[in-house]
Amino acid sequence: MDSLPKQKKPQAADIKISRLRNDIETVAKIGWDSEKGGVCRPGFSVADIDAREWLATQMTSCGLRTHIDAAGNVIGRWEVGERPALLIGSHLDSVPNGGILDGTLGVLAGLEVVRSMMDQGFSPARPIEIVATSEEEGRFGGMLGSQALTGAVERDWLYSAKDDDGALLVDCLKARGFEPDKIIALRRPPESIHAFLELHIEQGPVLETKNITIGIVEGISGVFHWTVCVTGQANHAGTTPMDMRHDSFAATAEFAHCIPEIIEEFGSVNSRITIGKVSVEPGFAHTVPGVTTFSIVGKDMDERVMKNLATACQNKISKISEKHGAVSKIDELSWLGPQPCDPQVMDVFLRAADHLGISSLSMPSGAGHDTQVMAAHSRAGMIFIPSRGGISHSPEEHTDWDDIASGTQVLLHAAKALSSS
Amino acid sequence: MDSLPKQKKPQAADIKISRLRNDIETVAKIGWDSEKGGVCRPGFSVADIDAREWLATQMTSCGLRTHIDAAGNVIGRWEVGERPALLIGSHLDSVPNGGILDGTLGVLAGLEVVRSMMDQGFSPARPIEIVATSEEEGRFGGMLGSQALTGAVERDWLYSAKDDDGALLVDCLKARGFEPDKIIALRRPPESIHAFLELHIEQGPVLETKNITIGIVEGISGVFHWTVCVTGQANHAGTTPMDMRHDSFAATAEFAHCIPEIIEEFGSVNSRITIGKVSVEPGFAHTVPGVTTFSIVGKDMDERVMKNLATACQNKISKISEKHGAVSKIDELSWLGPQPCDPQVMDVFLRAADHLGISSLSMPSGAGHDTQVMAAHSRAGMIFIPSRGGISHSPEEHTDWDDIASGTQVLLHAAKALSSS
Repeated sequence: MDSLPKQKKPQAADIKISRLRNDIETVAKIGWDSEKGGVCRPGFSVADIDAREWLATQMTSCGLRTHIDAAGNVIGRWEVGERPALLIGSHLDSVPNGGILDGTLGVLAGLEVVRSMMDQGFSPARPIEIVATSEEEGRFGGMLGSQALTGAVERDWLYSAKDDDGALLVDCLKARGFEPDKIIALRRPPESIHAFLELHIEQGPVLETKNITIGIVEGISGVFHWTVCVTGQANHAGTTPMDMRHDSFAATAEFAHCIPEIIEEFGSVNSRITIGKVSVEPGFAHTVPGVTTFSIVGKDMDERVMKNLATACQNKISKISEKHGAVSKIDELSWLGPQPCDPQVMDVFLRAADHLGISSLSMPSGAGHDTQVMAAHSRAGMIFIPSRGGISHSPEEHTDWDDIASGTQVLLHAAKALSSS
Repeated sequence: MDSLPKQKKPQAADIKISRLRNDIETVAKIGWDSEKGGVCRPGFSVADIDAREWLATQMTSCGLRTHIDAAGNVIGRWEVGERPALLIGSHLDSVPNGGILDGTLGVLAGLEVVRSMMDQGFSPARPIEIVATSEEEGRFGGMLGSQALTGAVERDWLYSAKDDDGALLVDCLKARGFEPDKIIALRRPPESIHAFLELHIEQGPVLETKNITIGIVEGISGVFHWTVCVTGQANHAGTTPMDMRHDSFAATAEFAHCIPEIIEEFGSVNSRITIGKVSVEPGFAHTVPGVTTFSIVGKDMDERVMKNLATACQNKISKISEKHGAVSKIDELSWLGPQPCDPQVMDVFLRAADHLGISSLSMPSGAGHDTQVMAAHSRAGMIFIPSRGGISHSPEEHTDWDDIASGTQVLLHAAKALSSS
């Protein structure tokens, strides 16, 4: 595995935070909602394309060979021979009224890494590519850009995917001058990629709470998503004694109350079980709920643990429903296994952080990222920096510039390590 | 107190169930929804007025002095001097797509009682009035008919009450030829009423489950109705560890799970606590719920017990919310004390049932009825007969004709006891 280049004690000047900040603030203006606040750059919106074109110009002026591919990915390549390239990046699209960092940070930090290397006269031993993937936020239900690069776009999906307003992905692509028919061919052989690196805000409270600067992502948690329907009997809340009820909400509450025990017994520190959506019918104050429908989203980094959690939930739901004279039905909407990051890339990040004297912590990512798609194809690794209050996908999203600088420094040093041989 | 008249062993022929059944089936056709099933006679609808006019004709042809008052109450009086009258009745209006019995049963059973007395040559020692109250189902949020008779109509409410579609009560009254300005004057002095008797379907599962024919109502349960809002913090379900959440739904579920304990410790056999309405925000499967709003309806026959239950709920909600790092807010929408029935009238019902060899049970009414309004004003009592599956306010409402006959027999014998002196 690549080793860290010998070098002098790290300086804050290694990357230029003011230059990076200037870029971030420039891109923040593209699609900014001056009324509600936040950045609006849904995939293939005018603002998204404007941001991509701005980025391509910056890349070109750094001397990178730059193109925007048929899927909307912006790729700027530092041409250094034909060896497998080191890829650094993230996405430029945003959720509606999202924060200014999110995916943009990972793209612009990558650009800053390359500029810093050039400033410092660092000569990589292999090509480095800065990648701004397209449509990571899933307007059309996938992660089009990274899926295209890894050959994970299914033809049927590509031609049928629609957004919430019913607009077809292929129509949106064509409207922006892209050629959907060329997307399948964008796949890059895994052996052409040395590693993919992504810097991202944590979007959770762990680093801030633990006062740690860098999260070294072990992988993206697996997730199962269920809809559970408990059917008891709707009854008059006044005339039905407590012991003659078949109260679907009481059964649901009893299950929800058991979640901590289920995790205690069958889960890990990385386990999450969430009931985020609940609907009660008929939903009248004076009526015992006949039907309660709720979502369960379960996560863990270990697929065996996920299976144990799922089985435990299933058993509890069934047992508790029966106790309440109700019946339950579980629909599995999706089951995605965990996607581990590359252990050697994790190690490079760890050593970079240690070398720079920056605190770090191994942790899972509970949210999906381009790294999850890339890691299924080639080596990939990801680092997090703290999100204030764990907030993201909101104008309230915030990370201190010092932490952004530290994250970019770690990214620079890891990129040097991974491209110096 | 009045005593049961000496009489021969009771015969099934005392009341004529076929005549009563014929009346019930006739009235069922007025406002019948042939598409969805069920009776649609909301207060002051055309069908409601048609049923009232049909009833008035029947009363008159029995020899009762009949009128429809300014509030829509139909009153047929068997004129027997000037002593305080025995009132028997219930309401003729229905919920949309309600059952054919509900209030109609109590009105027509009253009429059958009078006809049976007449058939048998029974001479009451006081006037008997059959009363079909108006607007008991609360289209306009009250129980207009019985409130008018007892002077419980507030002038401000009368002139401002609206239905769910925004129609003013006074406009609906005028449209049917009633004079709202005369409603306040309808109040009858308590001393003019000897007692009010009401036969009703139970609308709950108790009698059917216990295989008992007559429920002798102890009173109408008191009720408190709250809206509770638990505010935690919405967070990403993947990135927020379980121990860093402020999950408003987890807090709500934990409270809901405690309800049986609260009743065990502070309640009685008559206690009911129901969460019938639940809403979770933002309501996304992948987001920890930030705000959960739910209803609590608490009931008991003893106001001290109600207060203890309310305090216990309050304490639990506050303690559990705090434990989850959330805050809770309780809005009390209403607090109505219990309304006991008259113990002497209860005793007359008990002795009538015993005398007829019909099984009976003292029980609270968890639903509101005209008796609740009448009992606050004069002596009043109520009996229930079994509801199949506890179902009411639905085309599925059903009571066996044998039980209807038994209930009407008990009503007849009680009415004789209460009018024989």
